[in-house]
Amino acid sequence: MSGIAKTPEPPYYAVIFASQRKDGDKGYGEMAERMVELASKQKGFLGIDSARDSNLGITVSYWQSAESIRNWKEHAAHKVAQERGKKEWYQNYTVRVCKVERDYNFEL
Amino acid sequence: MSGIAKTPEPPYYAVIFASQRKDGDKGYGEMAERMVELASKQKGFLGIDSARDSNLGITVSYWQSAESIRNWKEHAAHKVAQERGKKEWYQNYTVRVCKVERDYNFEL
Repeated sequence: MSGIAKTPEPPYYAVIFASQRKDGDKGYGEMAERMVELASKQKGFLGIDSARDSNLGITVSYWQSAESIRNWKEHAAHKVAQERGKKEWYQNYTVRVCKVERDYNFEL
Repeated sequence: MSGIAKTPEPPYYAVIFASQRKDGDKGYGEMAERMVELASKQKGFLGIDSARDSNLGITVSYWQSAESIRNWKEHAAHKVAQERGKKEWYQNYTVRVCKVERDYNFEL
């Protein structure tokens, strides 16, 4: 079975979050887990893919609409995590909001 | 300095490639490096971000236009790499082609 997010037919939306962390966990792992759990309960959430190595982390979340992305961005608990992110966890990050126009899969 | 790709003002395009590998390198590392080098020479290429952990790899490449993505997909050397990918390296993958509508950065 694939561990890659299963999404419906395009169009749908994606948020690409690329980040470089500061050293040390400082509660990051726990918060990251909580945010994935919380995001997955939001209206319009379709799935999430995440990978991190020693240089870079990339998390891509998939959403039904631009509105569902805006709502999640403004979610109170997510706002708290965003603030801690800037102060404690991230050296730098880039967020890109995109409309997925087409997709295709390969599976053995 | 940020190690995250610097891209121009949206709109531009992104290709999100999420993959799970088979065990063993079998020439993958060398080919991956070669493909990044070759992609970066293509017309319309804007940048690339990549992260891989034990579960998943995510590579996002950024492009000026849908046409530059189509051209890269059809590039002869890239085609060869795609075929080897299906036969030798990947358990499964998903490719998503998106239009980036907005982005923002944070940097300490």
